[in-house]
Amino acid sequence: MSALPPINDAHRRQLGPIATPDRLLLGPGPSNAHPTVLQALARTPIGHLDPLYVELMGEVQELLRYAWQTDNRLTIPMSGTGSAAMEATLANTIEPGDKVLVAVKGYFGLRLADMAGRYRAEVATIERPWGEAFSLEEIEAALAHHRPAILAMVHAETSTGIRQPMEGIGDLCRKYDCLLLLDTVTSLGAVPLYLDAWKVDLAYSCSQKGLSCPPGLGPFTMGPRAEAKLASRSDKVPNWYLDVSLLNQYWGSDRVYHHTAPVNMNFGMREALRLLAEEGLEAVWDRHRQNAERLWRGLESLGLELHAPEHLRLPTLTTVRIPEGVDGKAFTLHLLNKHGIEVGGGLGALAGKVWRIGLMGYNSRAENVDRLLNLFETELPAFRPASQKQPVAAA
Amino acid sequence: MSALPPINDAHRRQLGPIATPDRLLLGPGPSNAHPTVLQALARTPIGHLDPLYVELMGEVQELLRYAWQTDNRLTIPMSGTGSAAMEATLANTIEPGDKVLVAVKGYFGLRLADMAGRYRAEVATIERPWGEAFSLEEIEAALAHHRPAILAMVHAETSTGIRQPMEGIGDLCRKYDCLLLLDTVTSLGAVPLYLDAWKVDLAYSCSQKGLSCPPGLGPFTMGPRAEAKLASRSDKVPNWYLDVSLLNQYWGSDRVYHHTAPVNMNFGMREALRLLAEEGLEAVWDRHRQNAERLWRGLESLGLELHAPEHLRLPTLTTVRIPEGVDGKAFTLHLLNKHGIEVGGGLGALAGKVWRIGLMGYNSRAENVDRLLNLFETELPAFRPASQKQPVAAA
Repeated sequence: MSALPPINDAHRRQLGPIATPDRLLLGPGPSNAHPTVLQALARTPIGHLDPLYVELMGEVQELLRYAWQTDNRLTIPMSGTGSAAMEATLANTIEPGDKVLVAVKGYFGLRLADMAGRYRAEVATIERPWGEAFSLEEIEAALAHHRPAILAMVHAETSTGIRQPMEGIGDLCRKYDCLLLLDTVTSLGAVPLYLDAWKVDLAYSCSQKGLSCPPGLGPFTMGPRAEAKLASRSDKVPNWYLDVSLLNQYWGSDRVYHHTAPVNMNFGMREALRLLAEEGLEAVWDRHRQNAERLWRGLESLGLELHAPEHLRLPTLTTVRIPEGVDGKAFTLHLLNKHGIEVGGGLGALAGKVWRIGLMGYNSRAENVDRLLNLFETELPAFRPASQKQPVAAA
Repeated sequence: MSALPPINDAHRRQLGPIATPDRLLLGPGPSNAHPTVLQALARTPIGHLDPLYVELMGEVQELLRYAWQTDNRLTIPMSGTGSAAMEATLANTIEPGDKVLVAVKGYFGLRLADMAGRYRAEVATIERPWGEAFSLEEIEAALAHHRPAILAMVHAETSTGIRQPMEGIGDLCRKYDCLLLLDTVTSLGAVPLYLDAWKVDLAYSCSQKGLSCPPGLGPFTMGPRAEAKLASRSDKVPNWYLDVSLLNQYWGSDRVYHHTAPVNMNFGMREALRLLAEEGLEAVWDRHRQNAERLWRGLESLGLELHAPEHLRLPTLTTVRIPEGVDGKAFTLHLLNKHGIEVGGGLGALAGKVWRIGLMGYNSRAENVDRLLNLFETELPAFRPASQKQPVAAA
């Protein structure tokens, strides 16, 4: 090795072993992972074409179908975060010039519109204020007017805490001959979801919320109508990594190498989904609902206002209005640094106006709700302007 | 919850806890991860905007710069596997109609050409047989003829075991005013690499080979000339997830949310890079070289032929010609199922012709070499045709 040029040590840092703290993550995600899932991540990797790994892939697919209540053949975790799975739904189905209608009622609707444009769709949007949902009449009027190839919308808006009622929308999309694409990032494994009954053609989610796995995988599913659109496209999918026609050769029976799968993340996903199936969807959904209601009642009893109307409120993500005069960021930093609890701030139109409290997956437990409520009660008064300090709960 | 439709339990499988075996992965990757890295993966996640996570991001960036021997500001792990990072180098820099010249001498050169075409590049290729490298003269002639905007090539071809000598290629790319894009998937952290000295403008790698981390992250780096090309493009990057202009707002000082980072995988990456810096590049490269030579001498002493000429041979990945009459797949399945050792088969033009043996990162150790050589000595004879069984080592 004597002929080698000298090494530049300018960026060689001598560090101690990693020492991240144990936080309680009650923000918009990531949420804490289940301890069993974390143990699975630390297993020795196996090959992505190992027969035992192939078996595990099948288990993950089946359990994702259960979680989403779909029979879709093409149900796989994308090897990236939820945003990669979001992009996969668009990249595979948009052909240049296709009209894509995005129903925007928060940050992630805007993201869908941005992504769709990059795939050369003609993007149209309808909008609702951040904290409301769409009615069937609004959707039908927009479909009739725009006649899109795809209607994209968000079931659970992480930026607002709003749940979009889905009954009837799938039928409208059949009537107007368009695909229905649904963001279920903050609902999968936590909020009632019936992809097939709702006639959803494309959906995606993430690993780090309802599924209690760390971030890194993006569940993706595509039904027969979306598959047909993919099969009929005249060009290659303009995204190699997320090309489902290639991925299906690996996840399908051919097992053709595409990319080296993130095997350890899939170990975690397999365990997360196994625990979900063990508890059962009814029990999981009910748990999320009960703990959310406990949080809502507690916050209201402290005089705090919730941003989303109760009938549209997500059990997974609660937006709380920051009281007049309170520095919301200072309070969340206090919770993080003094108490090891993460609560989120607002995003986009709600930046500085709300806190976002997540109760997702493993974290949806009464003890976490009570711990947080107790801190709101004891710590928030110090962050209120002097004039409001007495009485705290009189609002 | 009484109003909910019934749950379909058709896909609800009742599984036992995950029980993957401890394999020794001596194929083309993934390779075994360092135990310290695996422990880091199992840590409690923290938020992707947590000040402590932001600090960890800086450590990962600095140590990646050291590993690659570059000062590039834009050095980050993409939140996907090596193939995602490969795609990121092309997606960010190709504008429709740009000419991209790909030097193809194996499977991953073909992949670069496929990907570049999806970004509407005008793709030209030069080719060498699978098991050879390009000369400076060939490269210069192609640059002069094609006048590309980007020359893309593979430093360490995982499909052939060939190391492309890089001295002088960067200067040619400056002379002909094109960017130099380099695949370092099977060299980063294992084979001498000097990105800045070699005047490489864009490079990518993976987490699961030289770095001893499981698959799931794709190190990416972009130098000033490539940054300038990105900055001057007139359209948005046609890939949202891999858009470096957006990612830089998160990895740069603004810390603007882009996607939820795969925090646990980055815990592992941080530890992997810390261990690399602790050992030091010279020692790491030397270890890989010594163990590879031990493997080569051993295989040759068993009468086996190595596919790559020694002066171009990668220390990380050795291609061994499957002896006449041996069912290569049957032998690797035997090693996997009876001895828990994974060795790879051939890919593309070398399918059925070679085995691929990886000695990468944590797995590059003399004990692993000896264990594998011993199995080749004792187990392979049973897979040879009867006429060849005596004497085994006489070839």
